[in-house]
Amino acid sequence: MTRISFDEMKATIQKAFIRAGMPEDRADICARIHTESTADGVNSHGVNRVERFVEYLSNGWVDAQASPTLVNNLGALEIYNGNLGPGILNAIFAMNRAIQLADSNGVGWVSLQNTTHWMRGGTYGWLAAQKGYVGICWTNTERCMPPWGGKAEGIGNNPFVMAVPRKEGPLVLDMAMSQYSYGKVWGTRDKKQKLPYPGGFDHNGQLTDDPGIISETRRILPMGMWKGSGFAIMLDLISALSSGGLTTAGIDKVGKGSGGGSNQIFIAVNASKINTQEFIDHALNETISQIKSSEPAKEKGEIYFPGEQSMKTRKENMELGIPIDDGVWAKIKELANSVS
Amino acid sequence: MTRISFDEMKATIQKAFIRAGMPEDRADICARIHTESTADGVNSHGVNRVERFVEYLSNGWVDAQASPTLVNNLGALEIYNGNLGPGILNAIFAMNRAIQLADSNGVGWVSLQNTTHWMRGGTYGWLAAQKGYVGICWTNTERCMPPWGGKAEGIGNNPFVMAVPRKEGPLVLDMAMSQYSYGKVWGTRDKKQKLPYPGGFDHNGQLTDDPGIISETRRILPMGMWKGSGFAIMLDLISALSSGGLTTAGIDKVGKGSGGGSNQIFIAVNASKINTQEFIDHALNETISQIKSSEPAKEKGEIYFPGEQSMKTRKENMELGIPIDDGVWAKIKELANSVS
Repeated sequence: MTRISFDEMKATIQKAFIRAGMPEDRADICARIHTESTADGVNSHGVNRVERFVEYLSNGWVDAQASPTLVNNLGALEIYNGNLGPGILNAIFAMNRAIQLADSNGVGWVSLQNTTHWMRGGTYGWLAAQKGYVGICWTNTERCMPPWGGKAEGIGNNPFVMAVPRKEGPLVLDMAMSQYSYGKVWGTRDKKQKLPYPGGFDHNGQLTDDPGIISETRRILPMGMWKGSGFAIMLDLISALSSGGLTTAGIDKVGKGSGGGSNQIFIAVNASKINTQEFIDHALNETISQIKSSEPAKEKGEIYFPGEQSMKTRKENMELGIPIDDGVWAKIKELANSVS
Repeated sequence: MTRISFDEMKATIQKAFIRAGMPEDRADICARIHTESTADGVNSHGVNRVERFVEYLSNGWVDAQASPTLVNNLGALEIYNGNLGPGILNAIFAMNRAIQLADSNGVGWVSLQNTTHWMRGGTYGWLAAQKGYVGICWTNTERCMPPWGGKAEGIGNNPFVMAVPRKEGPLVLDMAMSQYSYGKVWGTRDKKQKLPYPGGFDHNGQLTDDPGIISETRRILPMGMWKGSGFAIMLDLISALSSGGLTTAGIDKVGKGSGGGSNQIFIAVNASKINTQEFIDHALNETISQIKSSEPAKEKGEIYFPGEQSMKTRKENMELGIPIDDGVWAKIKELANSVS
């Protein structure tokens, strides 16, 4: 594990993306987002995804040059074809467009069909909230989780994001539909530890906190059990019916890698047109203080609001450098410097 | 337990509401919704809420005469003051208005502040989907669940609803933020049974499936643990910032009973303007068949899509009569017939 400065990490990732065929300005944005996610502690969708993204650029599953094109304008709702362009660029475009639509209509809804993996969903929640908007977004994905009551994978892990603006830094919820990601399950297994709470089913159909067994059964637990399973199904269907794009079942047939051919929904609401800043501050402070005043479950425990821990991690990593696995860093440097 | 026909149940509830001061046409709608919820098996927000709703009409916490008034129109987003009118009537108005806004703008978003308990959230999802729209809605509530990491109640159970239209009957997800409702916890305790899966914390802070202990600690489990806790916070804040209404922390200070002073959000999307019926049918059938083809976890087990079990229960109850607890039915008849 090494700590690397934000600027060095970003510049190196950018070089890797340029080498893989991205124009410099596009590589600049994608590298920044990968680095920001890593700074927030979300390595799984930051540095740990750089190699795979470069692969997808190389084999054509992601088109480095493509941009969204308008399919349909219904007023406050617009549909774009992502043309299998870089998921990060498509999603930034879509959330910014939802914000513009919110400015003219109070609410903006952008449906993005035929896009690619957006990496960390929270990125687009932060984007909206930092501009002063309520943001909601989600994506569908290929299947990777059994539906409730089933043993075999049938539904996507469809991350769902909600964000609200706040002067001192936004509140952002970024949650996938499984209780734990496979990254967490495998990482815990490799450390020979147990999951903090049950995260899947064993070979006898019983809940288990043993990550090794869950890796074997691949019966990862939907968050909230039947609730997360149903939520994943609805996110999938609404993303398809609102965009004219593919469902999870359809994506499974495309075979263009993780997230290739998925749909994403971006919703923005202009909170400052609805409320005074004083009202917003009051609502947020009252809520945060109510949450934080609950007696901690563990001695000296702390109660966090959504996004709070990301902000703390970011602050620390911006000061000390961003931690990265040595092997991952070596690989990124190789991708940045190798003669193709 | 007695089975009562839909018409008899509805007529009796209507009489009770009229006696409590509701105009006949308004009582007609509210009684129909209470009966429909009961027919779908959701007694908790159907017949079991009749007595309390009559109380709220009597003590003025619900204003039988009030209707929503427009606070702000931003185009595709409108804000209404529910004026503490009957939650069901306010919510039906709001979802229908969101549908109208979706017709003109592709998407409609109605924020309803200062309303009262909408009873079963799914009602408004079914309403949108049966008219051919994608529907999303949620409400905030008073606090009744500890935030993740805390022991004391601090967040609301804020139900969240998503619905999509389908020729053979819609898919509707209607989920509260706790893994189990207190109704389920108490009912299971009274039958001296265990919950199917852990549903809260015991006195030592360990997960437990013992409903008696959860009733004591009142540490009911957020669905998906930290995820449901964060989701509840965000639903609350977005409902307040999009409506100019009260947060959960604010509602707690109003003290007008369950749901009094809450905000609700209603979003509709006109799916038929985006897709052909053929596309919609294909997307839904492909998804349902992918889910149903997963190998069942239990022998002869079945995998259901969201709303499927409600539809089955409704069909059975419409044929055989709707089951109702004898004591609850006697009380409703008393409310319908007593001389005030």
